[in-house]
Amino acid sequence: MTKILVLQGANMNWLGRREPHIYGSTTADEVDELMRAHAKEHGYTIEIAYHNHEGDAIEALYAAETGDVDVVVMNPGGLCYAGYALRDCMKGIKLPIVEIHMSNHYARKIDSVTAEAARGVILGFGVDTYLIGLDVALGLLKSRAG
Amino acid sequence: MTKILVLQGANMNWLGRREPHIYGSTTADEVDELMRAHAKEHGYTIEIAYHNHEGDAIEALYAAETGDVDVVVMNPGGLCYAGYALRDCMKGIKLPIVEIHMSNHYARKIDSVTAEAARGVILGFGVDTYLIGLDVALGLLKSRAG
Amino acid sequence: MTKILVLQGANMNWLGRREPHIYGSTTADEVDELMRAHAKEHGYTIEIAYHNHEGDAIEALYAAETGDVDVVVMNPGGLCYAGYALRDCMKGIKLPIVEIHMSNHYARKIDSVTAEAARGVILGFGVDTYLIGLDVALGLLKSRAG
Amino acid sequence: MTKILVLQGANMNWLGRREPHIYGSTTADEVDELMRAHAKEHGYTIEIAYHNHEGDAIEALYAAETGDVDVVVMNPGGLCYAGYALRDCMKGIKLPIVEIHMSNHYARKIDSVTAEAARGVILGFGVDTYLIGLDVALGLLKSRAG
Amino acid sequence: MTKILVLQGANMNWLGRREPHIYGSTTADEVDELMRAHAKEHGYTIEIAYHNHEGDAIEALYAAETGDVDVVVMNPGGLCYAGYALRDCMKGIKLPIVEIHMSNHYARKIDSVTAEAARGVILGFGVDTYLIGLDVALGLLKSRAG
Amino acid sequence: MTKILVLQGANMNWLGRREPHIYGSTTADEVDELMRAHAKEHGYTIEIAYHNHEGDAIEALYAAETGDVDVVVMNPGGLCYAGYALRDCMKGIKLPIVEIHMSNHYARKIDSVTAEAARGVILGFGVDTYLIGLDVALGLLKSRAG
Amino acid sequence: MTKILVLQGANMNWLGRREPHIYGSTTADEVDELMRAHAKEHGYTIEIAYHNHEGDAIEALYAAETGDVDVVVMNPGGLCYAGYALRDCMKGIKLPIVEIHMSNHYARKIDSVTAEAARGVILGFGVDTYLIGLDVALGLLKSRAG
Amino acid sequence: MTKILVLQGANMNWLGRREPHIYGSTTADEVDELMRAHAKEHGYTIEIAYHNHEGDAIEALYAAETGDVDVVVMNPGGLCYAGYALRDCMKGIKLPIVEIHMSNHYARKIDSVTAEAARGVILGFGVDTYLIGLDVALGLLKSRAG
Amino acid sequence: MTKILVLQGANMNWLGRREPHIYGSTTADEVDELMRAHAKEHGYTIEIAYHNHEGDAIEALYAAETGDVDVVVMNPGGLCYAGYALRDCMKGIKLPIVEIHMSNHYARKIDSVTAEAARGVILGFGVDTYLIGLDVALGLLKSRAG
Amino acid sequence: MTKILVLQGANMNWLGRREPHIYGSTTADEVDELMRAHAKEHGYTIEIAYHNHEGDAIEALYAAETGDVDVVVMNPGGLCYAGYALRDCMKGIKLPIVEIHMSNHYARKIDSVTAEAARGVILGFGVDTYLIGLDVALGLLKSRAG
Amino acid sequence: MTKILVLQGANMNWLGRREPHIYGSTTADEVDELMRAHAKEHGYTIEIAYHNHEGDAIEALYAAETGDVDVVVMNPGGLCYAGYALRDCMKGIKLPIVEIHMSNHYARKIDSVTAEAARGVILGFGVDTYLIGLDVALGLLKSRAG
Amino acid sequence: MTKILVLQGANMNWLGRREPHIYGSTTADEVDELMRAHAKEHGYTIEIAYHNHEGDAIEALYAAETGDVDVVVMNPGGLCYAGYALRDCMKGIKLPIVEIHMSNHYARKIDSVTAEAARGVILGFGVDTYLIGLDVALGLLKSRAG
Repeated sequence: MTKILVLQGANMNWLGRREPHIYGSTTADEVDELMRAHAKEHGYTIEIAYHNHEGDAIEALYAAETGDVDVVVMNPGGLCYAGYALRDCMKGIKLPIVEIHMSNHYARKIDSVTAEAARGVILGFGVDTYLIGLDVALGLLKSRAG
Repeated sequence: MTKILVLQGANMNWLGRREPHIYGSTTADEVDELMRAHAKEHGYTIEIAYHNHEGDAIEALYAAETGDVDVVVMNPGGLCYAGYALRDCMKGIKLPIVEIHMSNHYARKIDSVTAEAARGVILGFGVDTYLIGLDVALGLLKSRAG
Repeated sequence: MTKILVLQGANMNWLGRREPHIYGSTTADEVDELMRAHAKEHGYTIEIAYHNHEGDAIEALYAAETGDVDVVVMNPGGLCYAGYALRDCMKGIKLPIVEIHMSNHYARKIDSVTAEAARGVILGFGVDTYLIGLDVALGLLKSRAG
Repeated sequence: MTKILVLQGANMNWLGRREPHIYGSTTADEVDELMRAHAKEHGYTIEIAYHNHEGDAIEALYAAETGDVDVVVMNPGGLCYAGYALRDCMKGIKLPIVEIHMSNHYARKIDSVTAEAARGVILGFGVDTYLIGLDVALGLLKSRAG
Repeated sequence: MTKILVLQGANMNWLGRREPHIYGSTTADEVDELMRAHAKEHGYTIEIAYHNHEGDAIEALYAAETGDVDVVVMNPGGLCYAGYALRDCMKGIKLPIVEIHMSNHYARKIDSVTAEAARGVILGFGVDTYLIGLDVALGLLKSRAG
Repeated sequence: MTKILVLQGANMNWLGRREPHIYGSTTADEVDELMRAHAKEHGYTIEIAYHNHEGDAIEALYAAETGDVDVVVMNPGGLCYAGYALRDCMKGIKLPIVEIHMSNHYARKIDSVTAEAARGVILGFGVDTYLIGLDVALGLLKSRAG
Repeated sequence: MTKILVLQGANMNWLGRREPHIYGSTTADEVDELMRAHAKEHGYTIEIAYHNHEGDAIEALYAAETGDVDVVVMNPGGLCYAGYALRDCMKGIKLPIVEIHMSNHYARKIDSVTAEAARGVILGFGVDTYLIGLDVALGLLKSRAG
Repeated sequence: MTKILVLQGANMNWLGRREPHIYGSTTADEVDELMRAHAKEHGYTIEIAYHNHEGDAIEALYAAETGDVDVVVMNPGGLCYAGYALRDCMKGIKLPIVEIHMSNHYARKIDSVTAEAARGVILGFGVDTYLIGLDVALGLLKSRAG
Repeated sequence: MTKILVLQGANMNWLGRREPHIYGSTTADEVDELMRAHAKEHGYTIEIAYHNHEGDAIEALYAAETGDVDVVVMNPGGLCYAGYALRDCMKGIKLPIVEIHMSNHYARKIDSVTAEAARGVILGFGVDTYLIGLDVALGLLKSRAG
Repeated sequence: MTKILVLQGANMNWLGRREPHIYGSTTADEVDELMRAHAKEHGYTIEIAYHNHEGDAIEALYAAETGDVDVVVMNPGGLCYAGYALRDCMKGIKLPIVEIHMSNHYARKIDSVTAEAARGVILGFGVDTYLIGLDVALGLLKSRAG
Repeated sequence: MTKILVLQGANMNWLGRREPHIYGSTTADEVDELMRAHAKEHGYTIEIAYHNHEGDAIEALYAAETGDVDVVVMNPGGLCYAGYALRDCMKGIKLPIVEIHMSNHYARKIDSVTAEAARGVILGFGVDTYLIGLDVALGLLKSRAG
Repeated sequence: MTKILVLQGANMNWLGRREPHIYGSTTADEVDELMRAHAKEHGYTIEIAYHNHEGDAIEALYAAETGDVDVVVMNPGGLCYAGYALRDCMKGIKLPIVEIHMSNHYARKIDSVTAEAARGVILGFGVDTYLIGLDVALGLLKSRAG
């Protein structure tokens, strides 16, 4: 059975409370529920992890690489600014990673140093970005299997 | 009936022949066919336009704004480098625009000056990026209707 | 009889609808009417042209140079960001050009690459900027004739 | 009766003698005479002040704000390069200010740090720039009154 | 009873031994004692925490936000250079934060990326900076209560 | 008896009227009163001076150095942007100087060129910043005397 | 029979009249005649096209690629400053392109963004640059044939 | 007995699997074995630690400083990009540190922010870099003892 | 009789007390005496003026230009950092100006914005720089007279 | 009889062996032979000199200027990066110089500091660049003679 | 028998006398002796050359490449700042080069433009750096032979 | 007897012929004669050397340091742009060096990388700069002797 790891980076645990004019008021718990419903509907296993430590995110990726995860959807959150070690980790593993951001970074003049190591990047669709990310992740696996 | 305008910017007509190690060998005609099949399957009208002139892309957006288009999926292609006038046009209309790029710009150190004016941006999933863009465009309309 | 060409660059056709908090809600048609009334009042011929293509603006200037136009009032609009070819054209002709912008570019941190090739520049007086531009254009001719 | 303050910044007292290939040979006295004639013709009171000290220009603006001046025409002259305190003063008062420069700064690669705090800016029309500035200043008041 | 959290960032545990020509020779323990005496004297509860991990500092702030802390005095120490995730966390909570630095960063050409998210910043008064920070923190609460 | 000089730089005379959304509506006179009350309460002499000329601020500091002033609290106001001569003056005298700013410069992306020459810097606590500055100034003298 | 396309970019139609102190006074028509004489002398077909629109230049290159053109000599003129879309087009086709400029860009501190996509570049020999370009273009074909 | 601490920074645990075209295919375990053999041969105690968390690396150095470690050989790995806190820690302790990198950073345009705080730096000799680092570390102690 | 104006800019009055490790301990009064002795010895009139206000320095130069001064020796002191208005004044007058600095600006990474408007510049010879400047100023007059 | 000096700068002696994927495998000797054949064919004297010292290249140019050389073809090779002294020499002599480079510097993001002092520049045609350079050099003389 | 060339760049002849607080007081002669002893001890031939001319260093490397040198240890000294021609030479030969610097360039904010062309780089171990360099050079040969 | 070395850098041999609008038409020979007359008049030995090779200039300085030269007057000429090795040499010797330039570098936007290592710098007085430099050099010795 397909398994997707959703990796939530620094400050994502505070979703819904942090700068709601940018990120909306849907909380982390509510997003998790939406994603679990998506997993049920599409018949795959989902693992959701929140990490405020860059080192933990790195180790979660290495664990995923050696474990049974098939694809990763990652919102690096606050790790996108200076997460160069995380970026090198992403480059060093073979798992495909879909990086997502709820807001349009181009409009906010924000750069993500990890994005270059992802397969692709999706930005700006609010909470929907998570579900789009999961859709795309499933699609990546299909094109492999096909 | 929902109508999506797919706007293909400069050099997109050469898809499949231009730098296939980056963009793959699927031609513009083949991508069009994939998109038309998607429209048929999801029951919406699709209009696909290729423009090598920035001025034409601008005028196509103004026509869409005053016409019956509901949402735009745009790959600015070569207009992403210096298309400031196109960007201002995008900011000046109310139509939601999903900007897409087949390659991961972050990995290629390319900036898109138009991206800041899009609702959201999707990069790096090759030909699939077009179909993801269409999915997301439909989703934007649903969340409006809902 | 004196003839003034008013050259409206990219996106100026959308005046009144585009970012009205910056540019106000007077439409392009209404501005045209104000300028035609000004021409009538001051007894000169006015030609107003809107161009979203930089190439068209260039060719309009060459046509003006070889035609009977005496002075140009130009709002480059979206061509001000990267209109280097337009700038070289302006440098290459002898017609005096008054560049105008409705908003104060200094306050908005916007540069105009064409402005260096104009006789002078007027920024920030909203719709009135067009009429000021026409006044100044007439004055340029007088000081020549005088 | 309408009152206009014309504020001449650093080195403007040397007009006509300083770099005449750029600024022409009309002296400060002659420009003053032209402006006084303009005031007489248009029926308003004019006050002309020359300040080589940035602090004096600042205090002149605060005095104008609390006095009976209706609008300011200002050529910051040499204060345009680093007059950040003057700029903050301009931002802090409500009097409309028309900033003028006799030469086209865009062509000379000169920036004005005060310009962002003006209502609008006029550059490049030589001695005429003063009279245009006075016309525009009067126009600003009319649009208020109207 | 008022409660102040003193958050000591990376390397602050080494105070008194690290570069004493800059930071003096008062040790972390001695500073703690000074602060506890201050708390006793002014009648408030103090919690002092040292964190070398940015992730721990982030989580300590979220715990403070949901707990009974009223105001935070924070010396980010080595986290000031690239603590962008910490900065976003600070922006996302409502607790007022007073950022302090023992040395004058302006003189040492050091920037703090977290400082923009603090209520205010105090720099350069050596060990006294901690006590000033506590005084100011108490003052922030009073102005709220008043 | 201890004497503190409070040096108010360019535009500080306009406090309460200038950009009240940033600096609040307490006027310069009201701040002076607060400071004089502080002086009375703590038993020291206070001298408050407002200077819109950088040269005057420089001369005030040299006068303080040769006079009976013990410590300076300075808000350079508009002199913080380009007051390099003031900065050199500060470096050249022995009087301790506490630089203060009412707003958090880090959040507003403003630099102060004089700050490097101060003993320490306090930013962002609004009108209270003046009283904090006076407290700190007194503290500096105590640690000397002690 | 060998066929060379000479592509003249923005403002090249104004040759001989535009900044003659830089580009000389030979007109576009006269250069065309020189090139046609060269074609006759060397026995090849020449096609000369002038384009002020970047989009037209792009489409001319795609037409040449699919048509019977063997090699291109291109003076991008005003398109050299921001012709990124043209550059991508050049990279996407297989036709060898010789980029030429009449003046020495190095001496004038001008960059050409298209030059990186050309086979080689020739700058600074005035009107002769066109004939040198044609010689070199013929040479490129010979070394292929050889 | 001499004791060397080998500190492996972020992603070094993935050695041999991460970008083998750059770092080779010798695994972390194999390198450890080589180093332990070196310790045995030269008669010193070796402690090897892998840390993906910057905070852990910092604490390991403070522990080494207060423990019985004589010299440190450190490959910061992914911590070299933004490990400013680690750098400050290195500056704050007295233990000599030899920083090593398996690849030549100069050729890869990579900077190490920690390197300035090391005694010296060795780059580019692949797996051998570790053994060279150990040799040099022993040498540093000898010159001290001598 | 030849007349030399020595213009001392901001902070030069503090000479001998300000950063004596850079500028030495000779006071302003002592330097004046040395220069007056030089004037006596070489038979010319000397006028020495100290100005902490840029505006005063500007006006002193205009007064010198219209008065009987033959040549100026100027140490702009603290006005060298942002004295753009002073620079424009220097460009606008015909009096030859010898700019001097007691320390070697190149070694201290200091720029002088006024230096470009001087005839020549002398830096780094301490108090002797003043006498060298006077020698050179006399020489400039001689080559004119010759 | 016409005389051409071919000046080969640093590392050109290693042609054919140095980075053959960029410069091809034709050796310096073989290029010399090609050039001598060209000289014979076109009836002019050729002098070929290789210089790894910038000073030698400078002196060769001064010797050529005072000798009987009519025109120079120069490939500065490794002197193009920092050969500012060579550039000034080129500017100081009247001999026309054709600068050539075998590879397209624009594509390789290489700048040549000497190029601004050449009459014109030719880049990117491999070994043929030498023969093109000789052709162009002869052409320069003809247009002079004509 | 193995042969090592030690190449000493500009100013290395002055070792021991030049800035001894940075480079120590061991003279060039003494370092040579240390290296010759090392060669004797390890049974290889050593050639030591000092070059203040970049051109000479280049030619020494070409001679080594064609001669019997097996490996090079190079301290470019003053050639590290702008030795681009030397760098290209290093890239063009096959001999392995170990670049060494006595001081830690990272701590001194110095860049070496040649370092990217070396096999590896060793910095900061004072006079010992030479012996470490020789050890490493011998090691490079062994791993080849092995 | 005092001995002064005058060191003329790259291109100085071409004085009088190179860009005479900047450097005048006095030739190198004529300047030498002026300097020799100065030496005779003031009773000191003069040695004048011209070097187009940076390496030669370096070696001349080392020779002067170990020989009987008392002070150096140096015009680095073309070596001022990238003569970093020369600069390090100057820093490494104890001989005082007076750097001179005939033109005002500040006005020409030229930097000299060697100037920071000179005792002082004199710029802009044309041929006279040499004689001023000699005067100053003699003065440096006197103040030593005194």
